[in-house]
Amino acid sequence: MPRAVVLLSGGLDSATTLALAIRDGFEAHALTVRYGQRHALEVERARSLARALGAASHRIVDVDLSPFGGSALVDRALPVPKGREDAAIGGDIPVTYVPARNTIFLSLSLALAEVLGAEDVFLGANAIDYSGYPDCRPEYLRAFEALASLATRAGVEGRPLRIRAPLLERGKGDIVRLAVELGVDLALTLSCYDPSPDGAPCNACDACVLRRRGFAEAGLSDPGNLPQGRGRG
Amino acid sequence: MPRAVVLLSGGLDSATTLALAIRDGFEAHALTVRYGQRHALEVERARSLARALGAASHRIVDVDLSPFGGSALVDRALPVPKGREDAAIGGDIPVTYVPARNTIFLSLSLALAEVLGAEDVFLGANAIDYSGYPDCRPEYLRAFEALASLATRAGVEGRPLRIRAPLLERGKGDIVRLAVELGVDLALTLSCYDPSPDGAPCNACDACVLRRRGFAEAGLSDPGNLPQGRGRG
Repeated sequence: MPRAVVLLSGGLDSATTLALAIRDGFEAHALTVRYGQRHALEVERARSLARALGAASHRIVDVDLSPFGGSALVDRALPVPKGREDAAIGGDIPVTYVPARNTIFLSLSLALAEVLGAEDVFLGANAIDYSGYPDCRPEYLRAFEALASLATRAGVEGRPLRIRAPLLERGKGDIVRLAVELGVDLALTLSCYDPSPDGAPCNACDACVLRRRGFAEAGLSDPGNLPQGRGRG
Repeated sequence: MPRAVVLLSGGLDSATTLALAIRDGFEAHALTVRYGQRHALEVERARSLARALGAASHRIVDVDLSPFGGSALVDRALPVPKGREDAAIGGDIPVTYVPARNTIFLSLSLALAEVLGAEDVFLGANAIDYSGYPDCRPEYLRAFEALASLATRAGVEGRPLRIRAPLLERGKGDIVRLAVELGVDLALTLSCYDPSPDGAPCNACDACVLRRRGFAEAGLSDPGNLPQGRGRG
């Protein structure tokens, strides 16, 4: 079984990506980064998801980006935008953009892939119903792949790394349907940037708006719209 | 004054690079990464060097790579090779190679550069008297630059990042001479991978061998060959 590293945030997209990697026959090693995010609750969700989906291992790496600031996701002084129109999302780079976040996450994945002898890194990046972050674009991902082949012992020895973003071209409704098909427990996933301490989503940030759109398109109600535990038996 | 981020490990090359950036008119913001390295003493040296050389700020970011293992620098179970012949160094990728280290460091620099509005990142990478690490090669650094311009808000808005490795093509002797010329207090720098708890170098690891070669070529004795404090008045 080939090994893969899967970046797992605890959200809908990365959970679905992990399920896909496992379905496609990879021994999936999940990697979650606690980076000082305001919604650090997602790390606990990632832990539950890795276990529920059958990841071969799950590592949580701490990199505190909050001293850098510059993003509403790590700087408590910057409010998370709420109530933006659906159509406005993705048209600019919002204040929830975390400088270089995917580059940092992919670098850590690259390190882990090299240690594990994995030649594949999966991430849940999405370029259709997305938040306008530059480091989710296909050309960015190809550039990281090019970098990786020069960066590592594996690359030098002729084993280049593949960056796989299987959801890149899928809409949110499509992702919700796929998650259900793959048996992802969507109640465990947390998309909200600004949840209450008990895990209830704010229902107003861009991530909540995009998630709501996805469930509406899929014709399903969102089991993750309740605090974890509630309504789950 | 243009701002720059300077990766500062506490070693000879990065200290010289910081001095160069300051001499060349940059407002230099130093960044040190504590990554679980066995020679974490270098972080204290970095702190002293940033202050002594006049960095505009100094940040220390923690990213614990030791759970990944795979390198003698973060895994206490892997011994640091000692007593290798000078000529053998650089001919292979040694066990002191830390998977994806420079990619992780540059990613963090990219984040900080974006927050500070800096368009330049300096690092002390060296491709002449070096340890055979793939992520010190010029083609690697160019690939990171290409990635950076796709990764960030600044890149999207037409302000690409320059990765500057001013020591890339210099030999160790040349670097020692340059450091002296720039007034770097070499007694503060620590190159050794495996120093004693009081900061005395082992004098046998690859980093010590390369450093000794540099001082010999420059015709100087090494003031850093004593524990910090001793012999420094």
